[in-house]
Amino acid sequence: MDPEAFLDIANQVVKLKMFPYFDIAHCTLCALSVREDLGSGAQTFSRKHPLACWLSYMLVVFAGGMVANGLLAEPILAPLKNTPQLVVATLVWYVIFYTPIDLGYKLAKFLPIKVVFSAMKEIYRCKKVYDGVTHAAKLYPNGYLIMIIIGTLKGNGAGFTRLLERLIRGVWTPTAMEFMQPSFYTKASLVASLIFILDRKTELISAPHALVYFGIVIFFVYFKLSSILLGIHDPFVPFENLMCALFFGGIWDSLAKILGRGQPKEGEVKDAKKTN
Amino acid sequence: MDPEAFLDIANQVVKLKMFPYFDIAHCTLCALSVREDLGSGAQTFSRKHPLACWLSYMLVVFAGGMVANGLLAEPILAPLKNTPQLVVATLVWYVIFYTPIDLGYKLAKFLPIKVVFSAMKEIYRCKKVYDGVTHAAKLYPNGYLIMIIIGTLKGNGAGFTRLLERLIRGVWTPTAMEFMQPSFYTKASLVASLIFILDRKTELISAPHALVYFGIVIFFVYFKLSSILLGIHDPFVPFENLMCALFFGGIWDSLAKILGRGQPKEGEVKDAKKTN
Amino acid sequence: MDPEAFLDIANQVVKLKMFPYFDIAHCTLCALSVREDLGSGAQTFSRKHPLACWLSYMLVVFAGGMVANGLLAEPILAPLKNTPQLVVATLVWYVIFYTPIDLGYKLAKFLPIKVVFSAMKEIYRCKKVYDGVTHAAKLYPNGYLIMIIIGTLKGNGAGFTRLLERLIRGVWTPTAMEFMQPSFYTKASLVASLIFILDRKTELISAPHALVYFGIVIFFVYFKLSSILLGIHDPFVPFENLMCALFFGGIWDSLAKILGRGQPKEGEVKDAKKTN
Repeated sequence: MDPEAFLDIANQVVKLKMFPYFDIAHCTLCALSVREDLGSGAQTFSRKHPLACWLSYMLVVFAGGMVANGLLAEPILAPLKNTPQLVVATLVWYVIFYTPIDLGYKLAKFLPIKVVFSAMKEIYRCKKVYDGVTHAAKLYPNGYLIMIIIGTLKGNGAGFTRLLERLIRGVWTPTAMEFMQPSFYTKASLVASLIFILDRKTELISAPHALVYFGIVIFFVYFKLSSILLGIHDPFVPFENLMCALFFGGIWDSLAKILGRGQPKEGEVKDAKKTN
Repeated sequence: MDPEAFLDIANQVVKLKMFPYFDIAHCTLCALSVREDLGSGAQTFSRKHPLACWLSYMLVVFAGGMVANGLLAEPILAPLKNTPQLVVATLVWYVIFYTPIDLGYKLAKFLPIKVVFSAMKEIYRCKKVYDGVTHAAKLYPNGYLIMIIIGTLKGNGAGFTRLLERLIRGVWTPTAMEFMQPSFYTKASLVASLIFILDRKTELISAPHALVYFGIVIFFVYFKLSSILLGIHDPFVPFENLMCALFFGGIWDSLAKILGRGQPKEGEVKDAKKTN
Repeated sequence: MDPEAFLDIANQVVKLKMFPYFDIAHCTLCALSVREDLGSGAQTFSRKHPLACWLSYMLVVFAGGMVANGLLAEPILAPLKNTPQLVVATLVWYVIFYTPIDLGYKLAKFLPIKVVFSAMKEIYRCKKVYDGVTHAAKLYPNGYLIMIIIGTLKGNGAGFTRLLERLIRGVWTPTAMEFMQPSFYTKASLVASLIFILDRKTELISAPHALVYFGIVIFFVYFKLSSILLGIHDPFVPFENLMCALFFGGIWDSLAKILGRGQPKEGEVKDAKKTN
């Protein structure tokens, strides 16, 4: 492929307008996730508690912005000030939950549509991560951890508000903590935040910014599609296992075990499994 | 009644000073609600954990302002800066919980006093809803949803902090979510917010502002008194059922059921009831 | 002791630089508390969920600042902007949890080291309480309750974030509410806040500020060391019991009981114990 043309595409991706098509894709997938989270009782719940259903859905749609605003002392409700966006979000919710013979839901679940929407959502996610890192960097030029946290939260906000989202619907699942078993989206957003910070703050990445951005978009879309179509769920696992073995005790614990005098002893591991 | 005199009364209601009498009424009813929420263990609890008792009561008293401030990035503690108001609130708490032979509590439960205080609290509620809508409209002139949320929260803040209030007392009831079964106060505050927005932003309501305000005060007080004296608890229910039937699947679901091919099937409904 | 020399020491204590030695002491004790809170499963947990372990530890380290910022509409993440402090905190966490043959943990538990670090942490705590009161007093010159709340939260923030800290690790213990059974640190921070406010706002305390500050430091360190070395855990208990007897119903309830017509009756007390 012609590098000039490639850079051209990259520049266009950077400037892509999100509203309304990407918003529709994002909202549709959020509504599907809420509906799937409700399980077999989704229809009954949406009929009996439309307010709780709508509020928990809105929280999922605007999760990233709200949580990031809350942590940066900006108004948590600010993402709701854009009325056209709200109307689009509400319409999508209505279509997914309340259309006759469940047409909207069935359409959204139709594989080709789901694939296209998922790809669009990943492009949107990349933009959100980038915006989050840029915004945090403006506020705290040397707060690298803050940039990473905001970028990750903007990228996968819904993962971190899951407990609250379910609580709005009257369900409390304290063990479903994102931090305990971070999803692929969280890890990918974290890595993307790191790359954006390196791109912005250091000279390590010599490629033009548009290419870096486009590369991350491709990475996001590629793994999302592999996940839907091929069932590959988390390409980070081998790296994590390596990290854990090297830095977080793996090798030393094994050594200590072989030498027969270290922790964790068998009994302790069993205890731990029971208590956690 | 003379329309001039009526408008005059309306104008006086709009300018009514809240401190200290309306504050006392509000605090008394808050203390009663905390005490009733504690059930038969209220006395023992207030003796063993005065701090938790006082804090959860303060949260109930200042709930609306605190939650609204939290959502608008204003200091959550700001409602506590008014020392005379704090002193009044603390005195009321002390009288309700700790007077000898429980005199304060018995007096506050005495029907005529309760009726007067409830009416005063409703006048206060109306003012809070109006202040909330006005404040949000200043910050976000086109953020209609934000105005509604802030108005509703200011009107019935204690309903939304119930989980936190109980948590302060060491009790966790995740299913007691206001969004699942919104109380009459929440719905009335929501409707009042809507009317204030229509009055402020559109030309649909031609009556002078004082009359609109006074009309809402009368509506609040009237339904509160019906609730205490006649046991009518929620005049919104018929409208809600109509809305649900028309827009949230009611009719379509029935049609689909009759045609024998739609959801929710019998089994699904039963499942849903079990899981929720 | 020469009063001049004593004042000199006091002045030096006031100006003491906290970074990095006092930070190391603070972080070490935070890491120990997280590890002890995890119980016998600490090792296994730290190996399987390093991210949740690190995040909950960071929350403990920066709890006071984060909670106070959240309540004053300042950025919750702001305490994380100081990168050197973050690096120190992360290193300490690594040493306590992941050093081979658990060397770091064993060293930190070694009594003389623990005693020195505890004393340093108390000096740090005193500084935090003072900074909190000063900061709140700048924002709300007459908000005495706000000053007390912020001072107390800065002094023992970790006590108030315990629920959230455990939730990050997927454990939910709603009954472990600090307000129900305030720890000695909470009470001491509260008393220190009160003294700082009296010193700042009234003429009641005629001693120079440095002496007041130094007195509180000595009080904090003295009781911490008594707690570690002598097992005296809460010198406030007798005063509390007196307060409860005088003001929170104790005497009146006893009188009423003797006269045989007051609450709480035996049955009610038993009920209360069951429900709470």
